Amino acid sequence: MLYIVGLGLGDEKDITLRGLEAVQSSSKLYVEAYTSLLSFGLSSDGLSRLEKLYGKPVTVADREMVEERADEILSEASESNVSFLVVGDPFGATTHTDLVVRAKQLGLEVKVIHNASVMNAIGVCGLQLYRYGETVSIPFFTETWRPDSFYEKIKRNRELGLHTLCLLDIRVKEPSLESLCRGRKCYEPPKYMTVHIAINQLLEVEALRKGSAYCEKSKCVGIARLGNEDQLIASGSMTDLLNVDFGAPLHCLVIVGETHPVEEEMLEFYKVK
Amino acid sequence: MLYIVGLGLGDEKDITLRGLEAVQSSSKLYVEAYTSLLSFGLSSDGLSRLEKLYGKPVTVADREMVEERADEILSEASESNVSFLVVGDPFGATTHTDLVVRAKQLGLEVKVIHNASVMNAIGVCGLQLYRYGETVSIPFFTETWRPDSFYEKIKRNRELGLHTLCLLDIRVKEPSLESLCRGRKCYEPPKYMTVHIAINQLLEVEALRKGSAYCEKSKCVGIARLGNEDQLIASGSMTDLLNVDFGAPLHCLVIVGETHPVEEEMLEFYKVK
Repeated sequence: MLYIVGLGLGDEKDITLRGLEAVQSSSKLYVEAYTSLLSFGLSSDGLSRLEKLYGKPVTVADREMVEERADEILSEASESNVSFLVVGDPFGATTHTDLVVRAKQLGLEVKVIHNASVMNAIGVCGLQLYRYGETVSIPFFTETWRPDSFYEKIKRNRELGLHTLCLLDIRVKEPSLESLCRGRKCYEPPKYMTVHIAINQLLEVEALRKGSAYCEKSKCVGIARLGNEDQLIASGSMTDLLNVDFGAPLHCLVIVGETHPVEEEMLEFYKVK
Repeated sequence: MLYIVGLGLGDEKDITLRGLEAVQSSSKLYVEAYTSLLSFGLSSDGLSRLEKLYGKPVTVADREMVEERADEILSEASESNVSFLVVGDPFGATTHTDLVVRAKQLGLEVKVIHNASVMNAIGVCGLQLYRYGETVSIPFFTETWRPDSFYEKIKRNRELGLHTLCLLDIRVKEPSLESLCRGRKCYEPPKYMTVHIAINQLLEVEALRKGSAYCEKSKCVGIARLGNEDQLIASGSMTDLLNVDFGAPLHCLVIVGETHPVEEEMLEFYKVK
């Protein structure tokens, strides 16, 4: 049996009782470390906290490993229970879908244990989930690569009065350009897009495209460390949010559409003074 | 302290460790019973299963009670810890936002403990969450009340190639028309919209509006008891799904937009033969 277990957004205590049972019944545990930072710090003591709670070792499976060693993971799962642990909900990212498809093709039983993800926990900012349009991703711009397909989507959502959830880029374990040129893999340090970078990129694109999709005065909500004890939510114009120190990653951003009175009341609590 | 604790979608075991800690620290527990059926059966033994797990009594707070006795709940929370338990994630429904707004206005500390909801768990059907447009609600049609504002939204989503999550109507504790006329409250038995009813209503609206938003051949995914042990997922045309017995509630429906190959592969597993 292959369990795909969502860990939620906060720390090791955000696993469900059902998830913990699956973990305890498993002879092998993997945790994905690439679709998002374990905000509870896989990089430092997060992994050992997981292992302590579960009472058994956990193997960190980065993107490469999952892609290269999927056969091995699935072969183990055909002989005993294997849990693949995922930050947030299992279906936040395509890669897990890949693993599930391959498992099902092999006739393996797959059980998904759901948990919170940014896609629903974002409701905490007070904007109703059913009033969101298409979600967009904002990638880090480089000198030569400035993809802005998010622009038309945001414009469309705003024309329809809908909110837009902007997922901000995460770069972990990216081979450095230099190392690729030299033929061996060295990795760049991880990079997490901040609300500030996102807003600056958004305004840069608006200045170029001039489609009036949004402007410096457009209402937004910036969220840092969603679902964590120290989460920070701030609402205000894009300019307002550029003056807020959101602190450590992960960040995300909502561009606000038309609002109802209850939504307004909630945003008021988070307003930048 | 007021905790708003998400219970997730399956049964009592879907609470998180963090949620269970909040419950254990609370002197008073309420569980909402109106925004969705506890699929784990609050109506029969679900409540006693919750009480057994928590080791303390749980008060069922229906819509009326939350609206009428919010002051009382908030006053208790100002003196000790109170947990308000919610099926799915706390911010799936507006009513919890109301309660949070009132608590914050009183200066009460509010902590939200997230969990899975239909808005992210729907990812299990294989369609990528960021490829969904605006979510729609399909209400029960009556002889005289046939609101179809969902139609334009679905049409727009489909024109953009996006998937549409259709939340299907739930009627619990509705006063019967007869009882209202007699001036005392009697309640209709609970009613949950099935995938079949939803599809029939959708096709009826398309026949009237003739906007080619969708047709009998449009690809859909029907899901029953999402996140439960016995969840059922079936993909196929609207006509195909009319031949599937989805069984007990809750049901929901996805109208499929443009698909990527990985999405196609997943839908294939759930295809009606």
